Amino acid sequence: MSMDLLISLINKRNNPTVAGLDPKLDFIPKFILNKAFAEYGQNLQGAAAAILEFNKGLIDSFYDIVPAVKPQSAYYEMYGTYGLIALDETIKYAKSKGLYVILDVKRNDIGTTAEAYSSAYLGMTDVCGIKCRAFEPDSITVNGYLGSDGINPFINDCNAYDKSIFALVKTSNPSSGELQDLKLESGTVYEKMAELVNSWALKAMGESGYSNIGCVVGATYPKQAEILRKIMPNIFFLVPGYGAQGGGAADVVPAFNKDGLGAIVNSSRGIMCAYKKSGGDEAYANAARNECIRMRDELNTVR
Amino acid sequence: MSMDLLISLINKRNNPTVAGLDPKLDFIPKFILNKAFAEYGQNLQGAAAAILEFNKGLIDSFYDIVPAVKPQSAYYEMYGTYGLIALDETIKYAKSKGLYVILDVKRNDIGTTAEAYSSAYLGMTDVCGIKCRAFEPDSITVNGYLGSDGINPFINDCNAYDKSIFALVKTSNPSSGELQDLKLESGTVYEKMAELVNSWALKAMGESGYSNIGCVVGATYPKQAEILRKIMPNIFFLVPGYGAQGGGAADVVPAFNKDGLGAIVNSSRGIMCAYKKSGGDEAYANAARNECIRMRDELNTVR
Repeated sequence: MSMDLLISLINKRNNPTVAGLDPKLDFIPKFILNKAFAEYGQNLQGAAAAILEFNKGLIDSFYDIVPAVKPQSAYYEMYGTYGLIALDETIKYAKSKGLYVILDVKRNDIGTTAEAYSSAYLGMTDVCGIKCRAFEPDSITVNGYLGSDGINPFINDCNAYDKSIFALVKTSNPSSGELQDLKLESGTVYEKMAELVNSWALKAMGESGYSNIGCVVGATYPKQAEILRKIMPNIFFLVPGYGAQGGGAADVVPAFNKDGLGAIVNSSRGIMCAYKKSGGDEAYANAARNECIRMRDELNTVR
Repeated sequence: MSMDLLISLINKRNNPTVAGLDPKLDFIPKFILNKAFAEYGQNLQGAAAAILEFNKGLIDSFYDIVPAVKPQSAYYEMYGTYGLIALDETIKYAKSKGLYVILDVKRNDIGTTAEAYSSAYLGMTDVCGIKCRAFEPDSITVNGYLGSDGINPFINDCNAYDKSIFALVKTSNPSSGELQDLKLESGTVYEKMAELVNSWALKAMGESGYSNIGCVVGATYPKQAEILRKIMPNIFFLVPGYGAQGGGAADVVPAFNKDGLGAIVNSSRGIMCAYKKSGGDEAYANAARNECIRMRDELNTVR
């Protein structure tokens, strides 16, 4: 099962880190940008070429240290169709290096449309009887505001094609509480979302005791993570907000189960921009590798 | 202002219909599919070519009857990068024919990532000092589960680039109530979301008295629409769920204000597949046009 594969990679690398691939142009060393702009122009195509080269260099540097990568779709969609081609190539390259790929797309829609999104990212697209694969991640993020009929198509494809999803429960941003923390007659909105995720998870349990249906719980809200860990014992947590957003190693502790599993912690800027603190542009790949090792060791002291 | 432009087009065509462009392959006449498959193969590329030709034929048939089109991104993403190129071309073609384009993407993320999504669809993408345009719709749909800091970047670009957004409030699907109808200490989750949308709307008011920040309220929940119309008097409603999903003309009445404005009603399958009821494959464009006229006349009897 897909989440079991993620767990085996976490165990093999002894590392619960997911490296975020959010390639803002000011994260990319100048020599990569200049080469791409010289070849394709300083435009969307040139930017997409730089992103792909940067991503490949990063992946080459850390594929034996981290178990997973998480490209954030927004940072590719903003370069239009060129950006989406770079995203597709990034996913394929990461998978060719044995990495588990969580594509952060936060898709959500009504049932029939959710089926189309699920075909795009998890299942296959039926072209009048011939099944084709569009994008090829192992997993995507989804938003459950529309309820079960918007999530069931993804669950079906998790089972049919051995994939996983992570559903938003409590997000890492400052305004997340405006809706998610609202008090219900019993509990809060995010706790109710956790109960929904729990009910979805039962439909796609893996052999490891974890479901192929995971959730997103921000590192910036450790108290809420503690509550959520209890509500969802068999659910893997994808934890954003570590590092640049303010969450530290201590803040991610509540996301883990006592077995030291149950969570994978994302860092994007910290890894991608490590060269700015030490090493300089040409050493970006090595700096990223060193930061992945530092983060691995730090997380292993607390989990 | 952008929503004022939509209103002027609604007034000019005397029609509050938005034609959904959700091109499932079984909506497309066989002769279009066969031609595209012969040229590009029965694969993602061939499917995307068929979609673009079908969309162009539809747009040619009704651009003087309806004010707006709403491509649903999922039905393009499922054909991978070929599908996204067809989406880009569809948006450009619809705009060249004077249609207002609402791209249904339901994007959502934390602030910095929402900025990237907004650059992708509403604003411009900064390529190291050179501003480029990625996708070019007039408007997109967004999901506000992450709160204000996930929506503010879109509002900023609505103001800077004269665009609009529609934020999900009460969706048309059967499970929408699982989260949206939950009772808070005062009111429900969807009413709280409506209050948030109201507060966002004040930051982007147009000359017509309507804001560039609109919302999505399903035709399948007319009682909730009545409540929401009162909470959000200056907000334009995008109303899905008419026709195939079960909402009728009477159900959309509460979404309109007394001025006969304030709502635009989506129909996708009803228009795209009108030829299956009458006319046959070769007459698909004319059948779509006739359905747009029928829907216009029906909505004008109730608004």
